[in-house]
Amino acid sequence: MIGGGTGSFIGPVHRMAAAMDGMIELVSGAFSSNPENSLNSGRQLGLPDERIYSHWEEMISIESKLSKDKRPDFICIVTPNFLHYRPALEALKAGFEVVCDKPLTITVEEALELEKIVKRDKRIFCLTHNYTGYPMVKKAREITQNGELGTIRKVVVEYLQGWLSDKVEESGNKQAEWRADPKKAGMAGCMADIGTHAFQLTEYITGKKIIRLFSQLSSLVEGRQLDDDGNVIINLEEGIKGTLIASQVALGEENNLRIRVYGSEGSLLWEQMNPNNLLIRWKDKPYEVYRTATGFESIGKIANAHSRIPAGHPEGFIEAFANLYRNFALAVHAIRDGKEIDPSYDFPGIEDGVRGMKFLEAVVKSSVNDRWTDI
Amino acid sequence: MIGGGTGSFIGPVHRMAAAMDGMIELVSGAFSSNPENSLNSGRQLGLPDERIYSHWEEMISIESKLSKDKRPDFICIVTPNFLHYRPALEALKAGFEVVCDKPLTITVEEALELEKIVKRDKRIFCLTHNYTGYPMVKKAREITQNGELGTIRKVVVEYLQGWLSDKVEESGNKQAEWRADPKKAGMAGCMADIGTHAFQLTEYITGKKIIRLFSQLSSLVEGRQLDDDGNVIINLEEGIKGTLIASQVALGEENNLRIRVYGSEGSLLWEQMNPNNLLIRWKDKPYEVYRTATGFESIGKIANAHSRIPAGHPEGFIEAFANLYRNFALAVHAIRDGKEIDPSYDFPGIEDGVRGMKFLEAVVKSSVNDRWTDI
Amino acid sequence: MIGGGTGSFIGPVHRMAAAMDGMIELVSGAFSSNPENSLNSGRQLGLPDERIYSHWEEMISIESKLSKDKRPDFICIVTPNFLHYRPALEALKAGFEVVCDKPLTITVEEALELEKIVKRDKRIFCLTHNYTGYPMVKKAREITQNGELGTIRKVVVEYLQGWLSDKVEESGNKQAEWRADPKKAGMAGCMADIGTHAFQLTEYITGKKIIRLFSQLSSLVEGRQLDDDGNVIINLEEGIKGTLIASQVALGEENNLRIRVYGSEGSLLWEQMNPNNLLIRWKDKPYEVYRTATGFESIGKIANAHSRIPAGHPEGFIEAFANLYRNFALAVHAIRDGKEIDPSYDFPGIEDGVRGMKFLEAVVKSSVNDRWTDI
Amino acid sequence: MIGGGTGSFIGPVHRMAAAMDGMIELVSGAFSSNPENSLNSGRQLGLPDERIYSHWEEMISIESKLSKDKRPDFICIVTPNFLHYRPALEALKAGFEVVCDKPLTITVEEALELEKIVKRDKRIFCLTHNYTGYPMVKKAREITQNGELGTIRKVVVEYLQGWLSDKVEESGNKQAEWRADPKKAGMAGCMADIGTHAFQLTEYITGKKIIRLFSQLSSLVEGRQLDDDGNVIINLEEGIKGTLIASQVALGEENNLRIRVYGSEGSLLWEQMNPNNLLIRWKDKPYEVYRTATGFESIGKIANAHSRIPAGHPEGFIEAFANLYRNFALAVHAIRDGKEIDPSYDFPGIEDGVRGMKFLEAVVKSSVNDRWTDI
Repeated sequence: MIGGGTGSFIGPVHRMAAAMDGMIELVSGAFSSNPENSLNSGRQLGLPDERIYSHWEEMISIESKLSKDKRPDFICIVTPNFLHYRPALEALKAGFEVVCDKPLTITVEEALELEKIVKRDKRIFCLTHNYTGYPMVKKAREITQNGELGTIRKVVVEYLQGWLSDKVEESGNKQAEWRADPKKAGMAGCMADIGTHAFQLTEYITGKKIIRLFSQLSSLVEGRQLDDDGNVIINLEEGIKGTLIASQVALGEENNLRIRVYGSEGSLLWEQMNPNNLLIRWKDKPYEVYRTATGFESIGKIANAHSRIPAGHPEGFIEAFANLYRNFALAVHAIRDGKEIDPSYDFPGIEDGVRGMKFLEAVVKSSVNDRWTDI
Repeated sequence: MIGGGTGSFIGPVHRMAAAMDGMIELVSGAFSSNPENSLNSGRQLGLPDERIYSHWEEMISIESKLSKDKRPDFICIVTPNFLHYRPALEALKAGFEVVCDKPLTITVEEALELEKIVKRDKRIFCLTHNYTGYPMVKKAREITQNGELGTIRKVVVEYLQGWLSDKVEESGNKQAEWRADPKKAGMAGCMADIGTHAFQLTEYITGKKIIRLFSQLSSLVEGRQLDDDGNVIINLEEGIKGTLIASQVALGEENNLRIRVYGSEGSLLWEQMNPNNLLIRWKDKPYEVYRTATGFESIGKIANAHSRIPAGHPEGFIEAFANLYRNFALAVHAIRDGKEIDPSYDFPGIEDGVRGMKFLEAVVKSSVNDRWTDI
Repeated sequence: MIGGGTGSFIGPVHRMAAAMDGMIELVSGAFSSNPENSLNSGRQLGLPDERIYSHWEEMISIESKLSKDKRPDFICIVTPNFLHYRPALEALKAGFEVVCDKPLTITVEEALELEKIVKRDKRIFCLTHNYTGYPMVKKAREITQNGELGTIRKVVVEYLQGWLSDKVEESGNKQAEWRADPKKAGMAGCMADIGTHAFQLTEYITGKKIIRLFSQLSSLVEGRQLDDDGNVIINLEEGIKGTLIASQVALGEENNLRIRVYGSEGSLLWEQMNPNNLLIRWKDKPYEVYRTATGFESIGKIANAHSRIPAGHPEGFIEAFANLYRNFALAVHAIRDGKEIDPSYDFPGIEDGVRGMKFLEAVVKSSVNDRWTDI
Repeated sequence: MIGGGTGSFIGPVHRMAAAMDGMIELVSGAFSSNPENSLNSGRQLGLPDERIYSHWEEMISIESKLSKDKRPDFICIVTPNFLHYRPALEALKAGFEVVCDKPLTITVEEALELEKIVKRDKRIFCLTHNYTGYPMVKKAREITQNGELGTIRKVVVEYLQGWLSDKVEESGNKQAEWRADPKKAGMAGCMADIGTHAFQLTEYITGKKIIRLFSQLSSLVEGRQLDDDGNVIINLEEGIKGTLIASQVALGEENNLRIRVYGSEGSLLWEQMNPNNLLIRWKDKPYEVYRTATGFESIGKIANAHSRIPAGHPEGFIEAFANLYRNFALAVHAIRDGKEIDPSYDFPGIEDGVRGMKFLEAVVKSSVNDRWTDI
């Protein structure tokens, strides 16, 4: 693992998610650019000192030369955005599979560069757009793409948080610090951090690409350099219209990722904060609420394969995240064993990363130019 | 009453709302451009034949000359959009107060013309943006405008319906027919019908004007002349950003008017389909849910004055509509008695109508020109 | 109208409900045992002084002798419980139809007496168990009784309020005063006031009689004479088991009437505070949510006949109450015109009143004797 | 681990929960009474063959003699009810700490026997009433016991499931098979399986003991030997009244554990299927909704200590379960290190097990005798 030391939010999430199914074991790490933090973090996680590194380059270099039984199968990158590209590049070059946080990089060029290598070397690459791991997101995707909702006409997607309503980046909040710094976060703030999730979820569920957009990005907290709020009108393939909203200054919102897809025969609503429900509304029938883990035939094989316990025992964020790791691990095993990968056990990959960066580029450009911009 | 004969949706709503508090009595009407429909409708409503008219002009002309004890206090106009202006104009000229459906007219010029007369003659004019009649909308307005939410930063408002998902205007649905016809509905379809409600509600609650916008209007059902869907980025005074979405092809949505207002200290959420709740979220306290009719001091005098029965006995659409009529009737009485109008008992007026028409003009222009447009 | 003067809660509800559909007109009243209150109340309601009475006996005596065009069709009784029996008796004897608040009387004997006369004279009698007027209650009844839920096994019904959490009967709350006084309320407090609603709703929806019960009634606020809380285990015909809970000291509960019916093939949940939803859950399908007023075929003719406006425009307590009046008025017209009554337009009658009194007797007896008691 | 082999529901839950915080490692197991199943299960879990046992007695005997660095700290018992007592007894005698599923045993005597040994030998014993692990249950407990709700008057608790609506115990459902067999499940079915959770949660949150009850247990599915449904009136210390309902034939209910506590100043509602919300209602303030993981001071130190990720990232069943394991592990460490146990990090223990068995005994006796029965 690269990054994720003491004080990290996403590091422990990755570790809990990876541990859940007993398929993945943490064996080494460069947990922080601060050697002491890295060492302490590693020790707390029960690693022997010789597998704890002060720098990720050192780690990749040494770990890649370990014997097959000791060498990790993959490298997990949970650093701030600007520190995705180079570790990912080196890890891929050293022959590792990679799990990497989103957004993939801080420029489109870097993203394309990584994509080239992944494709050339047939590496397995997982970009942790973790919300696709929820069973009801799988069901939403299935029901949208198999035509049950008819012709899709409209999408409303939003990702709202409120934790940046004050200028917490100046009062010691590490999560906020790097996100507010263009050098570390990249060309966008809120849009990079959570807008990309909304974007990816939209394309994931509908199977249609967002082809152009008009956006207004704002820094609603005074003095903030990067956007903390954005309103975007989106146009997808085949005439689908919609809106994408992202904000980190929507005070009171915790982690409200919410998507609605409207078709000519039905529509769906899914909310991350109530993730085990999927509301489907039809032209002339009662509303239907699909539920995680019922095992009903109507829920479908794919959604059922992504739940762990009987219906009514809430499965949450970590479980969804764990589904990415589980599927990634299955893919690594399958490749190793020369087997086919079952497409039901999918996870976001390098293409999602490239799409995300193109989205970010377009959304920033449109806002600056006050103009419709193609992706 | 002008309009509202057999087959009308809004006519009966007006009648039920007006009757609720026992302050208003229907005495005459020209219920339809079809004389037979008008006569039958009037008879069903228990009116004597001599107070039922084949044409609204005839009605205004005759009724305005009745003796004081027979003459109605006001004229209620519930016709399609294109038939608001002239009846309103004539009613005002004949000395009647007026209750009129929204949007006020089909052009800004007509709206300004009516405004001139209302102001000149000090007429009482109620435009039935009925959603402002809900107690929790009153509370939302109070809490926003008294500063409790801090500086307002962002608004997300949406009004979604699905009833035009099919081309019902061609299969005998009268409500749909005139709404789909530019001659009768005016320059916009969905935006005129429900977008104006969302617009007015936003300005009503925040007390801030929307000053410019960028919109994309669409006809998502093939062959429809007017917009049935719109996505709008809005900018309000004082740097407030936001999104306004309206659709009548959002299949599965019934009558989903929903507004969120985010400030620097707190935020609110109100939903028309769950109208007796108002969710307030603060920076560092539990969520709060204000409820209609609790009588709690915290609910406030104004909201409590707009409910009729104890909390937990759901008050709905008709009750909210009735609040407009009640307040309008109180205003008519107050003026008549030479008393001051209590500002707590407010209702939307001619200015809301003018604002609405300017909004419509801007939203259509922006969509055509792909450009930010001032209101 | 007998009762319902200034300070009454239920009087205005009756008047708003009766007025809603334009079928019923208030023509006279004895609104209070206090002549001044009665006179003032009547005047505020726009009645001429000669139709306002100081005493209900005087009113029945005089009004029953009026000419056919002036004589009211029915008498509406909205007094405290102990004042139902005699006015109802006299009104029936004088040839009026009757609308009466629940519980019907304060003893089973009185109830049986009234039933005898209603049946003998073929009077139309409406007991205002108003919750049966909700469209989704009609649907719940239909779906239960047509066998869609399979064999019914279990019912959980509760009616919880919190307004008597303090001893408000001693601080001037008129509603509370008479309810806390055994002479005016009868043998039970909370159980008479709201427990009877829960009881009647259970039998109404399931179509099965509660045949025996075990109860514990309590006065949880110190010094209160009548029960303010009750927990009851109920057994219905055909081996159906269940629980009925009623409380007026469940602080925080507003007017929480809620019923769940579980069958061998499906189950339903309906909540008065969210009355336009009916949740149905099946053995192997997604949840279904039926919604008021969608007009869908699946909603059924009966439920649709009890809504007034399109889906998504919330219909509430007053509308449901108005459905009783509308149906009662239709029945009065039908009888007058010698037509059949359409069973879809039902309303609770004298039998419900007798059942309710028997329930009260059993629930009190069981609590006193700590013993299963038959109804 | 004893039990929890292939086909088990609760085995994997225990393993995921124990793994989550990286504090606990599975080292050995007797996963099934079927040696082959045990071996296969252990292998799938990555255990070496020599740590996989065919019988739990053999396991305890051998593992207890291992060197300190290999010997497990505790034994986890996840077998059917009748197989709790003896393994627990032997594990305790062999000097292990114990984690055991509920109900503790199948007779009160066995429970008391275990309690005696735990107390005598100062063993750490965790009974997995896992629902107490939810952060909002901790908050509910705190707010009830610190007096904020005033004097507690009434409790309504229910635990409803529908999965035994058919006689699945005869069609190969292993979970159902042993639960339906009095020899394996003990004196009660539904009440033992889930009624005990409702019982324990009530006492846990209120801090008051249930002192007597009146119950009706039923087998609503024909031919079932043990109860699948129960309705219970409960009386707690200090005059608190209430109802406890449990059912496994409430078709459509997934895992609906729900508790309401009403006091003289406020009330609370917590629902397992929406576990990150805690609704508090006050006498004269808006509703309040406390939310898991907000970090707000108002949420309190204890609740915050039982969440892992920021608010809005749903934490579910496994996380709550993991909280028991985390706290148990902390206690084991604390004892070992001679430190005090922080009472905030609590978990249910042997006393809860004894209370649960006494409850079961009373609930069965009352139902048989139709009589109030003391616990």
